Amino acid sequence: MSKKIEFFFDVGSPATYLAWTQLPAIAERHHAELVWKPMLLGGVFQATGNSSPATIEAKGRYTRVDFQRYANRYGVPLNHNPHFPINTLQLMRGATAFHGTEKFQPYLTAIFKAIWQDERDMNQPEVVGEVLANAGFDPTEVMALISNPAVKEQLKAVTEEAVERGVFGAPTIFVEGEMFFGQDRLEFVEQALA
Amino acid sequence: MSKKIEFFFDVGSPATYLAWTQLPAIAERHHAELVWKPMLLGGVFQATGNSSPATIEAKGRYTRVDFQRYANRYGVPLNHNPHFPINTLQLMRGATAFHGTEKFQPYLTAIFKAIWQDERDMNQPEVVGEVLANAGFDPTEVMALISNPAVKEQLKAVTEEAVERGVFGAPTIFVEGEMFFGQDRLEFVEQALA
Repeated sequence: MSKKIEFFFDVGSPATYLAWTQLPAIAERHHAELVWKPMLLGGVFQATGNSSPATIEAKGRYTRVDFQRYANRYGVPLNHNPHFPINTLQLMRGATAFHGTEKFQPYLTAIFKAIWQDERDMNQPEVVGEVLANAGFDPTEVMALISNPAVKEQLKAVTEEAVERGVFGAPTIFVEGEMFFGQDRLEFVEQALA
Repeated sequence: MSKKIEFFFDVGSPATYLAWTQLPAIAERHHAELVWKPMLLGGVFQATGNSSPATIEAKGRYTRVDFQRYANRYGVPLNHNPHFPINTLQLMRGATAFHGTEKFQPYLTAIFKAIWQDERDMNQPEVVGEVLANAGFDPTEVMALISNPAVKEQLKAVTEEAVERGVFGAPTIFVEGEMFFGQDRLEFVEQALA
């Protein structure tokens, strides 16, 4: 039986974006199943008392350099979003709504690219609408999906599950009960899969 | 000319202990000069608004597992100190006093071992005295050295230098103007030295 990689993520986190660029290949290399767990990082922060490294000025400055080093190592584009932090509530409801459908990956790709490559201000609903339309989505349809109470409840449930399992930030990955925080632990994830 | 590795450290940090077990070999491999920068992590936290990951319960739990993974990878002993956090003011004044003398490495070895291998309560002056005596130091002599105002000032100066250069935690390493935070960035340190 193939091992599972549970990926608790929020599109507003640059570390999550970096991990997302690498995980599909890691899953393939190890014949592992990638289990997507869209959560709300803001909810995790609130429940655990944690906060973004960017709230400490010196730490925020350093993490930008540090994330860039990983982007270079992975050979992927990463641009610091000047509108950071992005309120990802609606965006993660969208991820929750498309989860399990064939639109899930195109949706994530559009959102991650808009935030972490194209530096779009995804706090603005009209920018989100434009990004989604450009990626072939019908923004009105997406708005209808994400206002579904079941979608809201599902995002809350995954966020609560994350907190119960010890998550305090994004991305957090579980492999067979072992927890790994950050794109910088993907090597350990691979060891756990081996 | 050989490159410099500037190592800003505080003995109370498990990540610093882990980096300390690896850095001499890294310096040797790359014919680099290891420049020791004893600082007071508490002073850095105060100046930057940062705090130990252990202040967030879920993060503290995870980092203990995470540090153990690095200890296993390095093949070095690491035991969580039940008396953590240790007030390291006197201990780092000691490191400052011995800096540049032949007693510096024996002193660091005794202190790191007491905290991160033997789980000693280094908040207690009598325990510190015992640890130092067992390592061949005269505790009364050490006490005299660390009450020297010049030593106190020197520790303050290095701590201020750290903060000015962007340090927000321990250990922090500089190689040719590039800053690296944590034992988990030693690979990048080696790249910068190569």
